[in-house]
Amino acid sequence: MGSIVDQLTQMGVELPEPPVPVASYVGFVEHNGLVYVSGQLPMVAGALSHTGILGQDVSIEEGAAAARNCAINILAQVNVACGGDLERIQRCVRLGGFVASTPDFTDHPKIINGASDFMGEALGDKGVHARAAVGVAALPLNVPVEIEAIFATS
Amino acid sequence: MGSIVDQLTQMGVELPEPPVPVASYVGFVEHNGLVYVSGQLPMVAGALSHTGILGQDVSIEEGAAAARNCAINILAQVNVACGGDLERIQRCVRLGGFVASTPDFTDHPKIINGASDFMGEALGDKGVHARAAVGVAALPLNVPVEIEAIFATS
Amino acid sequence: MGSIVDQLTQMGVELPEPPVPVASYVGFVEHNGLVYVSGQLPMVAGALSHTGILGQDVSIEEGAAAARNCAINILAQVNVACGGDLERIQRCVRLGGFVASTPDFTDHPKIINGASDFMGEALGDKGVHARAAVGVAALPLNVPVEIEAIFATS
Repeated sequence: MGSIVDQLTQMGVELPEPPVPVASYVGFVEHNGLVYVSGQLPMVAGALSHTGILGQDVSIEEGAAAARNCAINILAQVNVACGGDLERIQRCVRLGGFVASTPDFTDHPKIINGASDFMGEALGDKGVHARAAVGVAALPLNVPVEIEAIFATS
Repeated sequence: MGSIVDQLTQMGVELPEPPVPVASYVGFVEHNGLVYVSGQLPMVAGALSHTGILGQDVSIEEGAAAARNCAINILAQVNVACGGDLERIQRCVRLGGFVASTPDFTDHPKIINGASDFMGEALGDKGVHARAAVGVAALPLNVPVEIEAIFATS
Repeated sequence: MGSIVDQLTQMGVELPEPPVPVASYVGFVEHNGLVYVSGQLPMVAGALSHTGILGQDVSIEEGAAAARNCAINILAQVNVACGGDLERIQRCVRLGGFVASTPDFTDHPKIINGASDFMGEALGDKGVHARAAVGVAALPLNVPVEIEAIFATS
């Protein structure tokens, strides 16, 4: 496998400038070799790619696509943490996936797979992570998915 | 207190081979002395021990029993991380407990106690952990509880 | 900026003795320079400052005030972890914010800002953290907010 940047190019993915939260929190905190990434939304070019709730007005395919967009924003935050050198990524340690869903929806793993598969595709062995996938009542700005992460970097 | 294995035997608990997720994520990731365990479901011998939602069709006793089964699966993952030597466990650092519940259910701590009590019983002082217990809208496969964990190992 | 204790005094905040959970879990676990704080509720002087669900019977202002009370309890736990010396705090690394909300509520960030802003005000640069803010179906004891945390200490 070549560099992560090459792989992203091949996947047609360009990492955006990550949004800077306007509050007393930040997109990520680096401590002792770990990068803690704040919950990322499916924001693409400054707008939400998807809104709504799984089991109600968002399909599994749309939810997985939204999760993939969250994952791209996670990697964009890690890119900043690494000073633009993605090769400093040692491992995607953990993803925490929150899916806005109705009480009778049970396919949360298929949604978060949109993010997990992206990490595997972009980072290879370094993208294989632990994760949790749960169904919450609602999410900020009515997004269907929010995902946070922990990365190990050198 | 004797060995953890002796204690589990006395409790009548046999750790299963943990299920291997069929996706770009894994049951656990070890990094720098910490084992991050993916969200575990109440799976026993390949089948779900409980399904449903607290406050609707699952009792507190059933929910706590489901949480205990999640905890057994967490320990089974840590067992693999430790190469089968549970004495390498230094500490159960954190449990993250998600309970599928109706909006008017408020006894989430009693559910997650099923997992917390198991860790205390099995691991003694090493089983005493920080935790969060929250009530989510729904969980994968309609399980009533999902629990993730961080362990410190030597 | 002066000491954190001076700053808290100026803010009119007195850290309480943190509640000790009566179960197989504890208020915090310290491991390798990180303090993992259990999910804190808006408990003030032994009673809940707020109960209810956002989007139903709790206003945004009330929710943010409840989140601030959770944050005060988090800092009270860290204070114990630091043996009463808050200057040992290096960084608030991460807040995990859970807001009990109806499915159509989308202002979760404004609620958790009550905690984030408190950390920034009390700790200055050390209070700037990563975070997740999600809307859950229900929380223990019918509280509107529960917040967990990771702190780095020396």
